[in-house]
Amino acid sequence: MNLRLQKLRKLLTEEKLDAVFISSLPNIIYLSGFSDFSTFDRDGFLLVTKTKQYIFTHGIYKEAVEQHVKNFTLIDIKRENTIGQAIKNIVVQEKINLLGFEAFDLKVNEYDRLIKEIDKNILMPTTIIHQLRIEKTHEEIKAIKKACQLGDKTFDFIITKIKLGVTEIEIAVALEFFIKNLGAVLSFDSVIAFGANASKPHHVPTKKKLQTNSFVLLDFGVKLNNYCSDMTRTIFFGNASAKQKQVYLSVLESQQEAIVLIKNNLKTKQQIIGKQADTVSREYLINKGYPSIPHSLGHGIGIELHEPPRLTPLSDEILEAGMVFSIEPGIYLPGKFGVRIEDLFAIEANKLIQLTNSPKNFIEL
Amino acid sequence: MNLRLQKLRKLLTEEKLDAVFISSLPNIIYLSGFSDFSTFDRDGFLLVTKTKQYIFTHGIYKEAVEQHVKNFTLIDIKRENTIGQAIKNIVVQEKINLLGFEAFDLKVNEYDRLIKEIDKNILMPTTIIHQLRIEKTHEEIKAIKKACQLGDKTFDFIITKIKLGVTEIEIAVALEFFIKNLGAVLSFDSVIAFGANASKPHHVPTKKKLQTNSFVLLDFGVKLNNYCSDMTRTIFFGNASAKQKQVYLSVLESQQEAIVLIKNNLKTKQQIIGKQADTVSREYLINKGYPSIPHSLGHGIGIELHEPPRLTPLSDEILEAGMVFSIEPGIYLPGKFGVRIEDLFAIEANKLIQLTNSPKNFIEL
Repeated sequence: MNLRLQKLRKLLTEEKLDAVFISSLPNIIYLSGFSDFSTFDRDGFLLVTKTKQYIFTHGIYKEAVEQHVKNFTLIDIKRENTIGQAIKNIVVQEKINLLGFEAFDLKVNEYDRLIKEIDKNILMPTTIIHQLRIEKTHEEIKAIKKACQLGDKTFDFIITKIKLGVTEIEIAVALEFFIKNLGAVLSFDSVIAFGANASKPHHVPTKKKLQTNSFVLLDFGVKLNNYCSDMTRTIFFGNASAKQKQVYLSVLESQQEAIVLIKNNLKTKQQIIGKQADTVSREYLINKGYPSIPHSLGHGIGIELHEPPRLTPLSDEILEAGMVFSIEPGIYLPGKFGVRIEDLFAIEANKLIQLTNSPKNFIEL
Repeated sequence: MNLRLQKLRKLLTEEKLDAVFISSLPNIIYLSGFSDFSTFDRDGFLLVTKTKQYIFTHGIYKEAVEQHVKNFTLIDIKRENTIGQAIKNIVVQEKINLLGFEAFDLKVNEYDRLIKEIDKNILMPTTIIHQLRIEKTHEEIKAIKKACQLGDKTFDFIITKIKLGVTEIEIAVALEFFIKNLGAVLSFDSVIAFGANASKPHHVPTKKKLQTNSFVLLDFGVKLNNYCSDMTRTIFFGNASAKQKQVYLSVLESQQEAIVLIKNNLKTKQQIIGKQADTVSREYLINKGYPSIPHSLGHGIGIELHEPPRLTPLSDEILEAGMVFSIEPGIYLPGKFGVRIEDLFAIEANKLIQLTNSPKNFIEL
């Protein structure tokens, strides 16, 4: 954690900020290691200055924070010491003239309460912690790889449950149970979609029963020690038509287009940016007469399921060493079916390393 | 759903708003019935004017929204038609002079993008949908009661799993799968705490093994058809000391103080406000020499786990017909143990009705 604080302070200096106020939960986890705050209440905040670091919480979490977050000064938030007042005290004490805050996370009414205590002119929106998080250490990549390996194990297990008449919800529950029994949790609610349901990219599992001759789309992730995996496989239950198999292979080829482009550019040390990867996969499908992908080609992943970098049609982010992201093209034919193939990749030592390793050949069960 | 829109339009008129822009997921679920949007990405918004209602989403959810949300006009959000531009068009077309928005939910950077498109002087923070949601219909109370009944069933099941050497995580996983196999989901991550861990009100389950002569705190909830339950029971594994039993009974009596106060005031048609209930329970414990409760006495519940009304030391909210809330005092002794007892109650026809009905006698297993 101390290394992360060191890096953060270097960035603070570069960005001419005196301190940063952190409200987003993934950033709190990244810097403090404490991951127990609720995802829907506001239970904790951090403030990192050039020389000190503070964690703000209230009675419900006080004891847990004292036990687990040793290197931050705990500030107990109460009715008579609100978060705004506590920040104001530090701003005055440490003579903070420019304070970064997370405009992508802070709510409008939280901001309004804050500027009742401190001068709004000292506040500056920042994404400084994301700038740190985008470049992962070898240990972080290993943590994601470990989650991916559990995901691969889960895939091997779950295909044994794909049987005539099973429901999408039953598959989702069996998958979750398997992951929890491995001592991990889901990184998001699984998308389990049979047949026509698979044309909705984020379909929520239903009681629909599996019929013969349908695609089965499985999009799920494992979270282990705060790091996420994410993978999609689409298999066929029954005997696919030539057209169905063709759609599957086109998605696979489309994914391969982006993989090859990134690998080649890394090899020849040419810059590769997010939109180049997105475009090559997207255009490949459009040129074959398929609809454009209704989502981006990929997203960064780590503590959050979706984080920088983005592989979108407009992304100018350079894909560089330490980044971990998905490549996940899809073809969605409303009323008919959908196919998506998604893997995670890391860039290390100028190489693109695939972290998810479940089979991608066309599987007919 | 149409009745809810009717009530909303009546409130719009009362508050002199021409329309309301809705970003919060629970409010989107309440008004549209659509509950599939992701909890961590921004996939949908609503806008309700005096005569029309719109749902904004993008390609990933378009087909699902078309299928499930028939009475809203779907606006497809794309790079060339951002949410800000789409709202601007409606503001112009429908001559909206005052537009409510959810300052408690909208992020600062979302607000900043919005006011690049529309005049910020027409924007007015509102909690109008919460004002509707606080007064639940008989059907909504029935939905919560049904979730509570599954919770009671889950409690009967889970106490059969409380055995020497079992871990907190094992209990949490067994509880979750019991609920999922009933066709429901958790309304929040369960708090399962053995012994000294129970002094942390929101303890996250660990691999700690159950030893004899420990308290076991079980705080969990069921979500069924979008409505939440929430209940805490604390039982004893082994033989409790006189002091431990005394602590348990004090918490139970403290809860009873608030219940009796609310019942009496309802009976005699005297107003009862949130802070009166909080104070009577809190003071009861303080007068017995225990520490003050490090959280509020209770919270409203419905589509959200925590929603109005609040039973806090400062809450001026009147407890009225249609409200559903928890009463959950606790005694927490850091390093030793903790006890909390939590039930849900509804006010209907001037009566306080208990919705959770698991036993509260001092259980020694």
